[in-house]
Amino acid sequence: MLIHSASQLLTLAGGPQRGHELGRLGLIEDGAVLVRGGLIEAVGPSAVLRAAYPNEDLWDAGGRVVMPGFVDPHTHLVWAGDRAQEFEWRTQGKTYTEIAAAGGGILATVRATREAPLETLIEQARQRAWTMLRHGTTTAEAKTGYGLTPESELRLLEAILQLNQEGPLELVPTYLAAHDVPPEFRSDPQTYVDQLCTEMLPAVRQWWQTHAPGRPLPFVDVFCERIAFDLAQSRQILVRARELGFGLKIHADEFESLGGARLAVELGATSADHLVKTPPEDIQALAVSGTVAVALPCTPFGLAQPEYTPARAILDAGGLLALATDLNPGTAWCESMPFVIALACRYLKLTPAEAIAAATINAAAAIGAADRLGSLEPGKQADLIVLDVPDYRHLGYRFGTNPVLRVMKRGRWVV
Amino acid sequence: MLIHSASQLLTLAGGPQRGHELGRLGLIEDGAVLVRGGLIEAVGPSAVLRAAYPNEDLWDAGGRVVMPGFVDPHTHLVWAGDRAQEFEWRTQGKTYTEIAAAGGGILATVRATREAPLETLIEQARQRAWTMLRHGTTTAEAKTGYGLTPESELRLLEAILQLNQEGPLELVPTYLAAHDVPPEFRSDPQTYVDQLCTEMLPAVRQWWQTHAPGRPLPFVDVFCERIAFDLAQSRQILVRARELGFGLKIHADEFESLGGARLAVELGATSADHLVKTPPEDIQALAVSGTVAVALPCTPFGLAQPEYTPARAILDAGGLLALATDLNPGTAWCESMPFVIALACRYLKLTPAEAIAAATINAAAAIGAADRLGSLEPGKQADLIVLDVPDYRHLGYRFGTNPVLRVMKRGRWVV
Ligand SMILES: [Zn+2]
Ligand SMILES: [Zn+2]
Repeated sequence: MLIHSASQLLTLAGGPQRGHELGRLGLIEDGAVLVRGGLIEAVGPSAVLRAAYPNEDLWDAGGRVVMPGFVDPHTHLVWAGDRAQEFEWRTQGKTYTEIAAAGGGILATVRATREAPLETLIEQARQRAWTMLRHGTTTAEAKTGYGLTPESELRLLEAILQLNQEGPLELVPTYLAAHDVPPEFRSDPQTYVDQLCTEMLPAVRQWWQTHAPGRPLPFVDVFCERIAFDLAQSRQILVRARELGFGLKIHADEFESLGGARLAVELGATSADHLVKTPPEDIQALAVSGTVAVALPCTPFGLAQPEYTPARAILDAGGLLALATDLNPGTAWCESMPFVIALACRYLKLTPAEAIAAATINAAAAIGAADRLGSLEPGKQADLIVLDVPDYRHLGYRFGTNPVLRVMKRGRWVV
Repeated sequence: MLIHSASQLLTLAGGPQRGHELGRLGLIEDGAVLVRGGLIEAVGPSAVLRAAYPNEDLWDAGGRVVMPGFVDPHTHLVWAGDRAQEFEWRTQGKTYTEIAAAGGGILATVRATREAPLETLIEQARQRAWTMLRHGTTTAEAKTGYGLTPESELRLLEAILQLNQEGPLELVPTYLAAHDVPPEFRSDPQTYVDQLCTEMLPAVRQWWQTHAPGRPLPFVDVFCERIAFDLAQSRQILVRARELGFGLKIHADEFESLGGARLAVELGATSADHLVKTPPEDIQALAVSGTVAVALPCTPFGLAQPEYTPARAILDAGGLLALATDLNPGTAWCESMPFVIALACRYLKLTPAEAIAAATINAAAAIGAADRLGSLEPGKQADLIVLDVPDYRHLGYRFGTNPVLRVMKRGRWVV
């Protein structure tokens, strides 16, 4: 199929974009893209491609923007229930401590998730997966982390595997049993960390090799904050995960800096995420590394907090910056990458072009998939979206609505 | 038709909600609403209404929330073109002055709007009207103000009339020829003000009586700010409009306080809008008046400015508070009242219930239509929406996506 007459075809060609390179859209006016066998075969001006492939089925983009599907490299897609009551309490001025005492917080979702049958978990996550697709996300990372027992965390991994199998949203799994200290271990978190390292991680590896043979292992992630796991515990978990062959991610510096970003660099993590309180020297260390800095602007927005990731400092230092939703039931129930871009243009001071690159090719790099996702280049997966706007800058400029008209996954229209 | 089995039916019954009364949802669990001849005939528990009306056509809300359609009482719906380039300039750090020098700002939209044929204006506004409907708005105020000549302002009024006629979105018109000083009068704004009072307003009245006989006159609105019309000019225009029988609105205290809110109270305006910089004594005066305070949180959000309308102070003083989008091509291209509610819960410190009342019954009051819109009560227009969520608090809690599943206007499903 030849998709032609895009007012602007954004290829995002040329690999992940570092520092001030960010925003290289590879824009082709009146552009076209040839899709065959689920892959991109060619991109170029409409006139050139129509002449070169005269017998191809045509799809007229009608002067709209065509670009790669968004990659959302940080989501907590699978959970049961909601925390709408807790949100209302927050608007009434209740404090974190009062909400926790009333049974709110992350452990409320852990309770609901542990109790839910696998089918319920899949059904509720499936609705969100479709909402993501309708907003242009064609691949998402998805974390476990609301089980916090060996069995329930595997059940969440199973839900992610099944949803990925079912499609069309492609899911890249992350094992986040270190999301929080389970209620059973509140008085002795170190014992949970030890169990995670000695039993759970090896068991996950074995489970994966049985249930998803030949597929790359999930990432392993840790929530490195005073309210969860300290730097030594985070290091212990990630070092063990690396020994076992897992790729690494880290939740770092959301509320305060414990050194998580530096740890990510030291261990060669694929990404370090949040980075709101990251000190300048850690930004420098991150920026010269291969670790992608993932900003999650929905989280401060969701909490109405004024401080966001210092994205311009990361770019000025030459870093690799990506954007994600952080979709989760506590602070950011938002499936929309267009909304993330609208926030990034306002609170991270990115231009629309920079935000788009951070949400596509660099987001693919944040899940180690920039070789096959995140741009429209020959040989890459045919994951693309059509925006019902004449100019890519409408992403960012307009907000609160969905500009995505159509979504193609692996060469097939799915929205 | 009997719509039944709503997990929560929000009636918003009992008229506009003042001060701390705000948030009275009139919630009926497992609720139902009977619609006949385009009007609400009855509301109550599903079991009661199903027993009372056994032969009625049934529509099963399936455990979702049913509530009145949103009323959006402040929009600049009709314009031509876009200002996406200007938005990009802002993200690059260009100043207001640099952007104006490069041909940006409100006068860029005035140029494009003056040049556009009526059909183009209607076509572009129609797309936005449908986006508003899909996000649950069943009635919107719509302002002129991008023409700024006698003829072009009437053309915008004509566009609003035609779009309202065409439906299904109901439009309540406002004449805002005092949106900005036209380029032709930059050196002599007072001459434009005089022309507005002596020629344009009487001509609009006459035009309206010919083109929309029997329908209530439009509102007349003024942009009272140092960059537009000062307090004396605003008073001159609004006093003249009142003499001619127009209802009044005012853009007041968005960037600085000139006394516009007090003027609104003095003249008995239907609403005073923006109110970001309103001093405490003006909030007091407003709060004890019949003038509705309309907060427009998309505007500071759109400009990434930290200061919002002091909504809690308005409520503490006993005021009537409403919410609107301020939909416009410069600062806030957002058609979504659910997004306005998400902002209001975070930056105006409203609870979801307060924000919902401010977006329905109080928003109807802000366009003088609380007697027939904004709540589900017998005799009112059957304008209602079905949210694909189990609990009304998902409005506010979730953001960046659209919870609206179905929209009924005057008893007919339109989305
Ligand atoms: Zn997270
Ligand atoms: Zn306005």
